[in-house]
Amino acid sequence: MRRVNLATQRSPLSAFARRLLSEWRRLELPTGDAHIVVAVSGGADSTALLLACDELIKAQRLVLMLTVAHLDHGLRGAASAADAAWVAQLARGLGHNVVIEHARVHESAQATGDNLEQAARRARYEFLARVARETQVRAVLVAHTLDDQAETLLLALMRGSGAEGLGGMRAARALDERRPDVLLARPLLRWARRTETVAYCCARGIEVRADALNEDERFARVRVRRQLVPLMETFNPRAVAALARTAELLRADSEALDEQAAQLLSVACGGPEQLMMATVGATTNEAESVTMDETATICASPLRVDVLRAAALAVRRRALRLWLKAGRGDLRRVTSTHVRAVERLLVGERGRRVAELPGGATVERRRGQLIFHGKMVEKGAGDV
Amino acid sequence: MRRVNLATQRSPLSAFARRLLSEWRRLELPTGDAHIVVAVSGGADSTALLLACDELIKAQRLVLMLTVAHLDHGLRGAASAADAAWVAQLARGLGHNVVIEHARVHESAQATGDNLEQAARRARYEFLARVARETQVRAVLVAHTLDDQAETLLLALMRGSGAEGLGGMRAARALDERRPDVLLARPLLRWARRTETVAYCCARGIEVRADALNEDERFARVRVRRQLVPLMETFNPRAVAALARTAELLRADSEALDEQAAQLLSVACGGPEQLMMATVGATTNEAESVTMDETATICASPLRVDVLRAAALAVRRRALRLWLKAGRGDLRRVTSTHVRAVERLLVGERGRRVAELPGGATVERRRGQLIFHGKMVEKGAGDV
Repeated sequence: MRRVNLATQRSPLSAFARRLLSEWRRLELPTGDAHIVVAVSGGADSTALLLACDELIKAQRLVLMLTVAHLDHGLRGAASAADAAWVAQLARGLGHNVVIEHARVHESAQATGDNLEQAARRARYEFLARVARETQVRAVLVAHTLDDQAETLLLALMRGSGAEGLGGMRAARALDERRPDVLLARPLLRWARRTETVAYCCARGIEVRADALNEDERFARVRVRRQLVPLMETFNPRAVAALARTAELLRADSEALDEQAAQLLSVACGGPEQLMMATVGATTNEAESVTMDETATICASPLRVDVLRAAALAVRRRALRLWLKAGRGDLRRVTSTHVRAVERLLVGERGRRVAELPGGATVERRRGQLIFHGKMVEKGAGDV
Repeated sequence: MRRVNLATQRSPLSAFARRLLSEWRRLELPTGDAHIVVAVSGGADSTALLLACDELIKAQRLVLMLTVAHLDHGLRGAASAADAAWVAQLARGLGHNVVIEHARVHESAQATGDNLEQAARRARYEFLARVARETQVRAVLVAHTLDDQAETLLLALMRGSGAEGLGGMRAARALDERRPDVLLARPLLRWARRTETVAYCCARGIEVRADALNEDERFARVRVRRQLVPLMETFNPRAVAALARTAELLRADSEALDEQAAQLLSVACGGPEQLMMATVGATTNEAESVTMDETATICASPLRVDVLRAAALAVRRRALRLWLKAGRGDLRRVTSTHVRAVERLLVGERGRRVAELPGGATVERRRGQLIFHGKMVEKGAGDV
């Protein structure tokens, strides 16, 4: 009779859980003696993430305390409340903690002027940051997939974005610039197709919640998913993976160039003694807009034209965006047309010239320098 | 009675010709006392380019000698020959010179192993280079439009390309690395939609030639034009312009990073005294592959691991590609998987390790260096 070593015997893992574990290690997420939060909407992606975490915990591959976080956005009335109840029941049935919160996204959208998608995203990330604080976790997991990454790239592409927008989401970043020690991780982002999350939930015998908004073709993202991506797959069956690879390459480009732009700015500012400091986020990616983690300290003081002119176009353009952001506080309504107008100040003859920015600020070229002139705008007046 | 100053009186220009003239000046193409070649297939784009050049010459906005160049690819039998005759008649009717040549693209494709599109492109650019030499012109004009640029980006995207592929075509570059003084210019690339070239030909009363291959949906580019782009325009009516803008942004990124990669390589090579020099093209863009104009002198000698590790990922990856190209002579069949394998040699512990390349060459990590080992492969043997 063969003796079984109980200490090393482990139940066989599903392929889905094995791939999650492999990515978990690559991302250096905590594997033992830690507490994590998993954001679960009740859809296939986040339910699969929860079930696979649960599988790894029960197989003792991960030794973690797990809290399920669910925000009821209140956008679909009784259906929203039913989703919340379903998530709570699933999580408790698996033996995990649950935090449910109810938001009023409609109202906050009206108050801020964001569209519903933006307001929902903002509410969700604020909720997750709050849960992370209260539970004192080291990582919050969200279930974006390879498909989400490809869709994000395509939406940015159709807006004419540069590498910073096309780079999409990162597999791991700080949840909040004030809490760099807490990770926001997307352990499905680099490998899981939506078909795989559906299949895994099905294999686990869990019938996930359908979100009618995910089928509503008035949302551009839904049409990308249901029309554009399938058409692209007729050109290349692996188009989604190809798009996600492109996003990763462009993100690396963007990060390298952003770093150089920050260096260029500090040289063009003419030295630390005259810096007017402002902390600004280096990323402008919409998907990352709620919490900015790559912060840089950028000066808003005058820039030397000769230094900017000597830099590569791609670096100079980014440096100017960072500088405008430092001066204005944000880049809202600043388009590539505005940045080009500022760039044009750099070429040609000397002499005093001015480029205008939305909201009343201006950039002036005078005596070999670019000078930012902010304008105190009464609340709301600049937005009319 | 008003006196008319005949010297400054000019006939009114069409909007199409005015925009061409504006781009002509931006590209600093010759406006007087020069000879140019215009490549004309007989389709709407190149016919519009010819007609607009002709309009500008007759309006004396350009004082140029113009030679029309047409390559009969011989791919459509009698229809090809009829196109050639049509182009010759149009050009002579307008009073310009014509050079017509007949190629055997089917046969050269079989000989080189290229597909028909590649072989046709190669034959065309070789023909244009030959005409440029014989006519001693300063610029050869081709009629790629904004639509072509968008299609090029989308095709590259669906292959999972990085910025170098997505950057598409340049509005002007050297025709041939051996002739940096002769421009290949695309004066329609940055502004003209295909609908505008069709409308301009129509307004000039010219019925252009239809190329059946441009309607053949077995070609990916045709399906991009007829299916993918129209779908994207339902998301953003100005999607084509947005894609072209993205291409331009990514090209600038790519150029900045390529330059840094070349600098990184020269540092990682450890100084000029040990350089084994090789002239390689810095671009790998398929659309630009026939003649490479951005040449850099890159060493294929061992690289210092510590120098490479300290560089940004995006710069290091490009440096390794340049280095592999210098070592192998080209990057045929070298995929991102191979480059990643070489990159992995940089991480982790010391010790001798090897990454394999297609065709038998290898890269070895030994004593803090990456070493390229070429392999003499018998002709064709490496391709089996």
